Amino acid sequence: MEISPVIDLLLKHRSIRKYTADPVPDAVLQQILEAGARAATTGNMQLYSVIVTKDEARKKALAPLHFNQPMITEAPVVLTFTADVNRFQQWCEQREAGRAYDNLLWYVCAAIDCLLMAQNTVIAAEAMGLGTCFLGTTLYMARELSEFFELPAGVIPLTTLTIGYPAEQPQMSDRLPMEGILHAERYQPYTPEAIDRIYGPKESLEQTRRLLLENALPNLAQIFTLRRYPLADNLKYTRLYLDLLKTQGYWSAEDTAECK
Amino acid sequence: MEISPVIDLLLKHRSIRKYTADPVPDAVLQQILEAGARAATTGNMQLYSVIVTKDEARKKALAPLHFNQPMITEAPVVLTFTADVNRFQQWCEQREAGRAYDNLLWYVCAAIDCLLMAQNTVIAAEAMGLGTCFLGTTLYMARELSEFFELPAGVIPLTTLTIGYPAEQPQMSDRLPMEGILHAERYQPYTPEAIDRIYGPKESLEQTRRLLLENALPNLAQIFTLRRYPLADNLKYTRLYLDLLKTQGYWSAEDTAECK
Repeated sequence: MEISPVIDLLLKHRSIRKYTADPVPDAVLQQILEAGARAATTGNMQLYSVIVTKDEARKKALAPLHFNQPMITEAPVVLTFTADVNRFQQWCEQREAGRAYDNLLWYVCAAIDCLLMAQNTVIAAEAMGLGTCFLGTTLYMARELSEFFELPAGVIPLTTLTIGYPAEQPQMSDRLPMEGILHAERYQPYTPEAIDRIYGPKESLEQTRRLLLENALPNLAQIFTLRRYPLADNLKYTRLYLDLLKTQGYWSAEDTAECK
Repeated sequence: MEISPVIDLLLKHRSIRKYTADPVPDAVLQQILEAGARAATTGNMQLYSVIVTKDEARKKALAPLHFNQPMITEAPVVLTFTADVNRFQQWCEQREAGRAYDNLLWYVCAAIDCLLMAQNTVIAAEAMGLGTCFLGTTLYMARELSEFFELPAGVIPLTTLTIGYPAEQPQMSDRLPMEGILHAERYQPYTPEAIDRIYGPKESLEQTRRLLLENALPNLAQIFTLRRYPLADNLKYTRLYLDLLKTQGYWSAEDTAECK
């Protein structure tokens, strides 16, 4: 089977965290965002907005909201992808059609639209020789980002993408074997042996051995639960994100009624 | 500026709802899913699972769970994309690292991982000459689908993709003008004039005129709020999805404590 150039591009993906000083020409940025917006969307509603940050002073102010990861100031372009039912609802109200989408179901629909569009944008960027990196800090600092970007009700940040011309050629990162993520017809429960088999290759990487030494921990799973993403942080950020869902109107009194 | 073949592929995307009888060879399916799994993922955790439905009897049984949309039985392959923290947590517990990811924050992280992978799979499929269609019914029937696929706690359906060789060449669907979805530096509130300008082209399409006649409604916005996705349905499905988030363990007592 011949590998198409598109498949080849997808297979070679890696996140790029270091960028040259070259700016991304406006025509290139426009092109990749237009290609991004061709992604499938729920009922063709396009329930997302993308905030483009290019201004140096704004990037400097944005950096602390991403825990000062250097990509924010070093990348020429930062895209913040938001789930957005505000625009659609404003249209509906202006046409005397009422409001219907400020609820959790449509947060998820908008998130789907937004993330399909974001990934299309990544592919388009890579096709144009650019490198990208998603920033997970977007969820932790979603309220601060909402204030920074002046997001109205119905709009909530989901992810951030830094874009620029690559100044590094990192190794490909590992992936689980396909048997680890695919299920034929029904979800196949993982036996302890399957878990060992699926995570074994990752656990025996050289970089894993280094991590365990640096952290003085006995295994990689504990690097995740004790260092990278510990439970206390997860519960704190869950509470903060849920509060923001309420502030941004995705969480109506009717939704929460049964929690009483 | 020259258009790359990848950008060209993205720009030509359309959902395909009719398929030839040709099966998708296993090697092709494997290839597109492997390309899909190269998408960026939170902390390289790959918090998703994909259920592959190919069996004719299973597709027949699955169809009613998607409101009998014909793509389910006509497409040779149906992929159900799930957010999945189960596998990762099982690994953590097996390594005495504890549990940390059964909360709303990680539902969103897993959804991000899952949807980036889903869109990569779409691009890979189209690169191989296949057509795809996402099914939004997945969210409405998420509980029934969870039972159908025997999903354990930590796993929840997000979207479904039908895949096959195209037996139709539909028109491209319209998209909002880019000014409608992009914001420079800050979210620019939409004036009533901007809303008219952004939605105007969509409202004056021939297909919109036909829809209004068929539905005896004065405008397209009301087609959405009164026919396609009315508020009562949205609240019903919100409640059902929230209940499922609880059943599947993404919604702990601590998360809901403050609703009291």
